[in-house]
Amino acid sequence: MTPRNLTPSREADRLRSDRAALDQLLDEVLVGYVALSLPEGPLALPVSYARDGDRVLFHGSTGSRRMRALAEGAEVCFTVAAADGLKVGRTAFGTGMQFRSATLFGTCELIEGEEKVAALGLYTDRYLPGRMTEVRPITAREAAATMLLALPIGEWSMKVAEGFAHDDFDEVAGEVWAGVVPWFQGVGEPISNPDLPAGIEVPNSVKALYQP
Amino acid sequence: MTPRNLTPSREADRLRSDRAALDQLLDEVLVGYVALSLPEGPLALPVSYARDGDRVLFHGSTGSRRMRALAEGAEVCFTVAAADGLKVGRTAFGTGMQFRSATLFGTCELIEGEEKVAALGLYTDRYLPGRMTEVRPITAREAAATMLLALPIGEWSMKVAEGFAHDDFDEVAGEVWAGVVPWFQGVGEPISNPDLPAGIEVPNSVKALYQP
Repeated sequence: MTPRNLTPSREADRLRSDRAALDQLLDEVLVGYVALSLPEGPLALPVSYARDGDRVLFHGSTGSRRMRALAEGAEVCFTVAAADGLKVGRTAFGTGMQFRSATLFGTCELIEGEEKVAALGLYTDRYLPGRMTEVRPITAREAAATMLLALPIGEWSMKVAEGFAHDDFDEVAGEVWAGVVPWFQGVGEPISNPDLPAGIEVPNSVKALYQP
Repeated sequence: MTPRNLTPSREADRLRSDRAALDQLLDEVLVGYVALSLPEGPLALPVSYARDGDRVLFHGSTGSRRMRALAEGAEVCFTVAAADGLKVGRTAFGTGMQFRSATLFGTCELIEGEEKVAALGLYTDRYLPGRMTEVRPITAREAAATMLLALPIGEWSMKVAEGFAHDDFDEVAGEVWAGVVPWFQGVGEPISNPDLPAGIEVPNSVKALYQP
């Protein structure tokens, strides 16, 4: 954490500096947002990503102008958020969201060669743990078809809003319900590819993700 | 849609120009990302938001420098994405995400006065439909405590990745499973505030969100 993140704020009590909480959030959220300042204006791109220790990996098309800008050292902001629930207050004004969010700042490095093949495998296992033991290895030719970038986890900040809505005392004495409606990321029943030959079972990696 | 969004792309088959699909996505996703180019670099802020016809509303602290920059006409990019599922391929390389994403560009307007009170009610009903019939009206004083911005839905683009993983023919002939693991936004069992007096039931708005 650096001074950029420590600006006094009305929401200072929501700030977190716990790296374990950051890692948990990064490992849990499915989509990250890479923001960059282009000559034509700001842009936020949704990306799949994987945390690899002290860096965040994400890939894109080798033909993408934006990916090239990132590979060439453009400043980026990488943001993730989890919407954990709706804090329902006794009033509309007292209603808000339970969330965790994190913002990382820095510049990306291009990952290449042997390291790239390994990192792409880690990427696959992040979304489907154990999958790399079920499929053949990634080839050098496949690795060459995508661009892989790594953003070091260096300068970052995290905000957490938890608990319940806090209404004024005279509202609390009323007859209106207040509470939390939890939100979560659900996993549905796996669907086999229409062209899958008969007799091929759902693999362990997929079974572990989906509990009926 | 304007030329900015119609750049030829390797992923041109994923582009959508269907406004109804955009509206559905905006109405479904819980968190949006507002990107802006600040002197110190790009920034993407996660925000709750509500679509109000042809504009997207989001609010923030009146004391926030970033909200003020937006109110003063800073260019913004507003991005949302839904992760609909994991397309599991026969190979790691063939594995990817089912998603829908949209990016809106423009500048925000500050919403004030009577219009602001109405818009804040709409915002509450977006996350908890019908809630405004269960709580007292928003007061002018409450409305004054937050800053409400509207981004017109003018220049935008949308990308959709659906269906199944497409593996090469020699992979398809193999013994490896392929399919889709669906993801969805789940709603958990509501939790009453610890300070809720006995005898106050979960309201209809909350019951409608949560089906056990």
